[in-house]
Amino acid sequence: MANKRVYSFGGGKGDGHGSMKNLLGGKGANLAEMAKLGIPVPAGFTITTEMCTAYYENKGKLPKALIDDVKSALKKTERVMKKKFGDEKNPLLMSVRSGARMSMPGMMETVLNVGLTSKTLPGLVKKSGDERFAYDAYRRLITMYSDVVMEKAAGVEPKDGEGIRHKLEHAMDALKAKKGVTEDTDLDVDDLKGLVDEYKKLVKKTLGVEFPDDPMEQLWGGIRAVFQSWNGKRAIAYRQIEGIPHDWGTAVNVQAMVFGNMGDTSATGVAFTRNPATGEDKFYGEWLINAQGEDVVAGTRTPSPLNKSTKTEDQKDIKSLEEAMPKVYKKLYAIRNKLEKHYKDMQDIEFTIEDGELWMLQTRTGKRTGTAAVRTAVEMAESKLINKETALQRVKPEQLDELLHPMLDPEAESRAPRLAKGLPAGPGGGVGRVVFTADDAAAWAKEQEKKKPEDREPVVLVRNETSPEDVHGMHVAAAILTAKGGMTSHAALVARGWGKCCIVGCGALSIDAKAKKFTVDGKTIGEGDWISLNGTTGLVYEGSVGVLPAQPERNKWYKKLMKWADATRQINVRTNCETPEDAAQAVAFGAEGIGLARTEHMFFEPERVIHVREMIFAQTEADRRKAVMKLLPFQKKDFLGIFKAMAGKPVTVRLLDPPLHEFMTLDDAQKKQLADHVGRSVKDVEARIEQLHELNPMLGHRGCRLGTVYPEITEMQARAILEAAAELGKKKTKVLPEIMIPLVGHENEFKNQEAVVRTVADEVKAKYKLKKLDYLVGTMIEIPRACLVADKIAERAEFFSFGTNDLTQMGFGYSRDDINGFLPYYLENDILPRDPFQVLDQEGIGQLVEMGVQRGRGERPDLKVGICGEHGGEPSSVKFCHRVGLNYVSCSPFRVPIARLAAAQAALENPRKEVKAKAKAKKKAKAKAATRKKK
Amino acid sequence: MANKRVYSFGGGKGDGHGSMKNLLGGKGANLAEMAKLGIPVPAGFTITTEMCTAYYENKGKLPKALIDDVKSALKKTERVMKKKFGDEKNPLLMSVRSGARMSMPGMMETVLNVGLTSKTLPGLVKKSGDERFAYDAYRRLITMYSDVVMEKAAGVEPKDGEGIRHKLEHAMDALKAKKGVTEDTDLDVDDLKGLVDEYKKLVKKTLGVEFPDDPMEQLWGGIRAVFQSWNGKRAIAYRQIEGIPHDWGTAVNVQAMVFGNMGDTSATGVAFTRNPATGEDKFYGEWLINAQGEDVVAGTRTPSPLNKSTKTEDQKDIKSLEEAMPKVYKKLYAIRNKLEKHYKDMQDIEFTIEDGELWMLQTRTGKRTGTAAVRTAVEMAESKLINKETALQRVKPEQLDELLHPMLDPEAESRAPRLAKGLPAGPGGGVGRVVFTADDAAAWAKEQEKKKPEDREPVVLVRNETSPEDVHGMHVAAAILTAKGGMTSHAALVARGWGKCCIVGCGALSIDAKAKKFTVDGKTIGEGDWISLNGTTGLVYEGSVGVLPAQPERNKWYKKLMKWADATRQINVRTNCETPEDAAQAVAFGAEGIGLARTEHMFFEPERVIHVREMIFAQTEADRRKAVMKLLPFQKKDFLGIFKAMAGKPVTVRLLDPPLHEFMTLDDAQKKQLADHVGRSVKDVEARIEQLHELNPMLGHRGCRLGTVYPEITEMQARAILEAAAELGKKKTKVLPEIMIPLVGHENEFKNQEAVVRTVADEVKAKYKLKKLDYLVGTMIEIPRACLVADKIAERAEFFSFGTNDLTQMGFGYSRDDINGFLPYYLENDILPRDPFQVLDQEGIGQLVEMGVQRGRGERPDLKVGICGEHGGEPSSVKFCHRVGLNYVSCSPFRVPIARLAAAQAALENPRKEVKAKAKAKKKAKAKAATRKKK
Repeated sequence: MANKRVYSFGGGKGDGHGSMKNLLGGKGANLAEMAKLGIPVPAGFTITTEMCTAYYENKGKLPKALIDDVKSALKKTERVMKKKFGDEKNPLLMSVRSGARMSMPGMMETVLNVGLTSKTLPGLVKKSGDERFAYDAYRRLITMYSDVVMEKAAGVEPKDGEGIRHKLEHAMDALKAKKGVTEDTDLDVDDLKGLVDEYKKLVKKTLGVEFPDDPMEQLWGGIRAVFQSWNGKRAIAYRQIEGIPHDWGTAVNVQAMVFGNMGDTSATGVAFTRNPATGEDKFYGEWLINAQGEDVVAGTRTPSPLNKSTKTEDQKDIKSLEEAMPKVYKKLYAIRNKLEKHYKDMQDIEFTIEDGELWMLQTRTGKRTGTAAVRTAVEMAESKLINKETALQRVKPEQLDELLHPMLDPEAESRAPRLAKGLPAGPGGGVGRVVFTADDAAAWAKEQEKKKPEDREPVVLVRNETSPEDVHGMHVAAAILTAKGGMTSHAALVARGWGKCCIVGCGALSIDAKAKKFTVDGKTIGEGDWISLNGTTGLVYEGSVGVLPAQPERNKWYKKLMKWADATRQINVRTNCETPEDAAQAVAFGAEGIGLARTEHMFFEPERVIHVREMIFAQTEADRRKAVMKLLPFQKKDFLGIFKAMAGKPVTVRLLDPPLHEFMTLDDAQKKQLADHVGRSVKDVEARIEQLHELNPMLGHRGCRLGTVYPEITEMQARAILEAAAELGKKKTKVLPEIMIPLVGHENEFKNQEAVVRTVADEVKAKYKLKKLDYLVGTMIEIPRACLVADKIAERAEFFSFGTNDLTQMGFGYSRDDINGFLPYYLENDILPRDPFQVLDQEGIGQLVEMGVQRGRGERPDLKVGICGEHGGEPSSVKFCHRVGLNYVSCSPFRVPIARLAAAQAALENPRKEVKAKAKAKKKAKAKAATRKKK
Repeated sequence: MANKRVYSFGGGKGDGHGSMKNLLGGKGANLAEMAKLGIPVPAGFTITTEMCTAYYENKGKLPKALIDDVKSALKKTERVMKKKFGDEKNPLLMSVRSGARMSMPGMMETVLNVGLTSKTLPGLVKKSGDERFAYDAYRRLITMYSDVVMEKAAGVEPKDGEGIRHKLEHAMDALKAKKGVTEDTDLDVDDLKGLVDEYKKLVKKTLGVEFPDDPMEQLWGGIRAVFQSWNGKRAIAYRQIEGIPHDWGTAVNVQAMVFGNMGDTSATGVAFTRNPATGEDKFYGEWLINAQGEDVVAGTRTPSPLNKSTKTEDQKDIKSLEEAMPKVYKKLYAIRNKLEKHYKDMQDIEFTIEDGELWMLQTRTGKRTGTAAVRTAVEMAESKLINKETALQRVKPEQLDELLHPMLDPEAESRAPRLAKGLPAGPGGGVGRVVFTADDAAAWAKEQEKKKPEDREPVVLVRNETSPEDVHGMHVAAAILTAKGGMTSHAALVARGWGKCCIVGCGALSIDAKAKKFTVDGKTIGEGDWISLNGTTGLVYEGSVGVLPAQPERNKWYKKLMKWADATRQINVRTNCETPEDAAQAVAFGAEGIGLARTEHMFFEPERVIHVREMIFAQTEADRRKAVMKLLPFQKKDFLGIFKAMAGKPVTVRLLDPPLHEFMTLDDAQKKQLADHVGRSVKDVEARIEQLHELNPMLGHRGCRLGTVYPEITEMQARAILEAAAELGKKKTKVLPEIMIPLVGHENEFKNQEAVVRTVADEVKAKYKLKKLDYLVGTMIEIPRACLVADKIAERAEFFSFGTNDLTQMGFGYSRDDINGFLPYYLENDILPRDPFQVLDQEGIGQLVEMGVQRGRGERPDLKVGICGEHGGEPSSVKFCHRVGLNYVSCSPFRVPIARLAAAQAALENPRKEVKAKAKAKKKAKAKAATRKKK
């Protein structure tokens, strides 16, 4: 490996720069960048991510050359900081922090105060002039180091409550109890001295080795621990959720310590250059006087606001940094402006004030809610800090989800019994039953999965504070509520990342997690009780408050962004729905048509399904036809409703798809009812059910295989669709039905079904005395073979719609209903990078899609092509669809805005040369059509 | 349509020639060819197959131009035959016959004596000088025409026993009964005159119209009837079985009548230029004196042998044509030689002798048994009539099936109670229960399908004679036995075509089909009784005689042909089997290795399956491993046996494939046993069974998905295979195991499983102290996605074997277990041309295979590629495999010779430039391997 292994920064210089994130991690790259910008940064150096990879490749051995490089980088740091590492008189202390390419907050380890030993301690005491501070630093080092390096990184696995950190904290609590105090700060220097001795003994006793007293040993221990934590359980779990590759590795940032806990002229804080919850253009942050950074993040002390303008009503009497240290604040504010101007994006910064001197410890792109992302992007574009294209790229399409989520019904909320108020960390409304541990939340959610979606009951996870160990429970909870912590606490950061409703720092809550209850304001809320959260205001209510659908149309920034997106994107966005109500909702969300209306849902209503069953029983074609035709008026009514709601936008209707046995799951009473209805015995009914049984219904008698064997079903459905269209057409309502034949695998299937539809169309035209009846006949491409022979199918099919759900099932050979035996294992063990039912497998199934498009268009250049599988609303899949030339994607109503934005981003990333192509295609289409006629 | 519509022949001239079969049909083309060869052929003309297509396209309307063409062709015929159609004094009578591109014996209609009317009848009487003959001809015309043209072609559908033919025959039978005679020939001229009158009345009464008395009306009626019969039910059914496209259409041959029934100087006959059952080079045929051709084919009179040398013992006293009409026979024999020399193949001819004059009515390539096909081809090549390549192409690979079929055990046969002797029409042995109607045969066969293959009981169809209406029953019967008919009767022709055991003309049988029994030699055999047939000798036995496997190795012609095939083919042929016995059988049949040994079969034995179930129950990996490892000694023993039997030939072993629930189909006693064995309750057992249940097991937790989640299974199997190989290797026995990972869809699955195998291999090498252990690790390509990413899989996989069964299931989205709901309909209605599980769908699934080969070889040019789906033994699929570059096909032992011959034919049709390509591939492979190492 010939690359540079260690990059130094500090003193206005930096070996690296901001764009070297892959090599230096986000934190390291930005430290170098800040140093170069002349921003005060404690000096230090970054060990590259490549060293992490090397560490794992060499089974934990570090390259020898690295050891030399670190030594010389340490020398540089000593020169800039004018202190010496391990020096007895003027000791330099270092922090050792992780820093991955993408932020993984709290998922990896940090060790602070490295270099403090029995020899350097007196030097620190003397230099700082604060014996208590020095011993407190030593105490912190021992706690952190023994846990992170000596226990975790060494692979020791203590039982619950027997970890070294727990034991040390217990010793401190015991001491406080003995002294009758509650705060750490109430312990004096002698207490701390005793505690340090006790700590060392506990370490020896618990872990069997002495606490290391050599600064270099401490440093290497810290570096190894960071590398080791890259493959810790939490980190792996986080990467799986976030889709971060496991082979990236982390960098290690070794940086001179600066102390925010050296008395009342010291402080520490974190801030966002704008409000990360709302996106408002106000400097927004929190600080703690006489504290170290971890105190803010851990949420053990509730911090103060940064400035006057962001104080809430409750915080009136608390001093902001602006008031407490106006000069330092002014400096910080200037840095805030410099950073935003330089990075052209909202920044998340950490700073420490050591004895009145401001040090910047970190800057990175700030995580924000979807609401904030939209507002920030739009406002930055409007102020010309960025252009519109960048603004569109700034918002992750998934983030819009949050704007589209329901909120508490204000009416009901005004009457709801208020329990408490906390910090509004994640906007939107969240209602659910209370649980007190992440495991309970996960177990509850798993239980709910067995129920029908409409019967599922959500949970709200209530904790004192959350830690990375809780992410699995937080992920499944409808909302999160914590008693401690601020807007930048773990719970707040994580929930905001997911766009989840979250309230933190709700101090009025007294939680007894063991007894599974909390009390607030004299009331006791136990496990399973309903509560409701308004994550936008921070208010918590007792009971279940009604929720209202999201109203993104009231958000002007959202509206502007979507306008830009619509002007940018080059493909259409349709929706999958089958009721007039959903259709209206989807149109409100910007749907430009229906890409998939499933007709089988219309078959299941009790007054209809009896005819379906009668049809299944028919012995002759005539009887079958008679039964089927009873469904005609129902289906026609359905289509009239949908067509009206879509007001002339194209509507793709899929003909009956599921196997007939899906209509024949009957209890005894239903069997009897059916037997009576068709004049047969219950035995006959049971025999027919048995006859319809299939071993692999997924691959059975369904889709167009039904319509081919029972053409009267196709005939009835075509008639319902076309008569509805004809009737509305007579009334001058524009209607464009696209009749979709499902599950075609051979062109003859399509030919057969198309003929049935065309015959019906001619009859409908005659019946309604129409000169013209606009409709298309096309097919769902969802069988692998269909992609291979798409050219032949396109000879007759006027449109394709990719059914990527089934295509994934058959292409992978996975039954979606049966993947639980192996898919979780596959994802955990990296056999598959993603669940292919969530994110389209572009490598494999994507090839089939692309092949289908190319071959289809090769035969019919003006072939309309879309996608109606669930992937149609997943951003990376939408981008794929744009790239391979689809005309539209179709997704559930709530995913429509997401698809619109994803499509816009796709157009920016891979613009299509549409105009030229369109003209060419038109010409080719004409020629092909002429050839077809000759045939 | 600018093409010639009508082609004349006769008088030593012909408009067409022998290679115009597509346009003129086989019969028409050969009539023209014979005419040109100077062979005496009654003059006439052929209406092209294009006219048939036009007939259907124009919904039954004939082109006007055709009418004129027919008229002028008729004039030519009149000139050559020196008679006039419709002439009262010297009337020309015509036959109207079908003639498709490929022979469809008895499937379409024929009308003879066309042109005989009340006006021309006296002329025929006078010219022939035989009033009885003339009236008999008229009677025959009325019978045939009223049935074929007036009833069938007109679409009249009479009830059973109420058809016009039945009524006319009934009238004749009544007359014979009244006169106390049994033979038609016992009726005198007055009888026939009366009968003709009665016939005309019956026609009028039954069909409501007069029998047409206009010769041209009769002619056009006949022509239309032939066209119409192309789409008759029987014809369609036959084409489906034989795979003849429905859009070919038939030609119509209109030819001057010559009469074999003009007294004892007249005769008719059919013959083969060589023996169609054995292939022996002897002129072989049958004739009837004073008869028309239909009498021979219908089997109503048993004909006499053609010559002395082909007489059987029983026929000693019957006069052969050679003896009865030596001059004519000599002429015929010369024609036989001329035809074979000209056509260079065995011919099936029809002739008529009219008043001592020989006329050839037809020549066509003779249908023959597989045995005959092989012998004929080899002997013709040896006598230099054809070359070896042609000889190889002459035998349909499927025909070998017959040589490989079992025969009656001679020992048992010698002791079996003989019932009767008939004509040996289809060789081999056939044993089964007696049924008397085709419908009963079909119903019985259907019933048997519900049983396990080893428990199924075959049927023998016993009939007086068979007709095309019986084909469905003949198809499912193990053997066919008829009381009437000769070697060229319907039963004999059809059975021979299928290579089925068949005995005809077994006159000793007295069959009472209504009572479902037959008596012979005083014994009565009823429905359901067992009989045994030796189709090679014609002997019928009572009871079930044991059968012996086929012994093709005793057939010298077969051995020679296969030697030629092996020298010609360019791909290897392996077998699918998993027992040493089957392996030995396959090697005897020429298998060059095992392409698929399924290991799950080895799991099902009672003493083993209990451990499998214990494994399924294990809660921990350790318990699972313990249970699995109990199977190791069993599996190792299995592999030792197979490896020894294959003696160094490659053996591909597939790791466990089926879902675990297949091992958990338990009755109550088994549940109890299992519960006791694993120390759990029956409830637990039932819960586990429930848990394993899958909605679509085909797409569930199976194949490598098992081995990935439970690596100890893969480990145990790899160990069994490799330890067996190592042990034999120690004893200097060559072994080449190829370990096949099933159901790989993503390269990571392969990587994962390969790693397990390689680790085991290293352990085995160490355990047995081996320097080298030869084995390959490869995969079954059976998931569509695997074909798409074959390049990635080939990065590590050393071989591919296409599992086209599953590939077809997933590529089409058909569950083989559930296709009965639609596939029969699809085949009947031409939605699919063939059952894709029988014949590889080259258009769709074939693309996946080809893609897999190309991409796999693109990455690894020396990748070994084979096929182990059932298509590996189907000739057209074998040819496909050759074309797309596979190294081998693998099929069941009994299909091995078929695959060898198909492969040879493929090499002749599309020779590979192997030598060059191999050298190139080797070079490329080296380079790629080097690159892989670097990675």
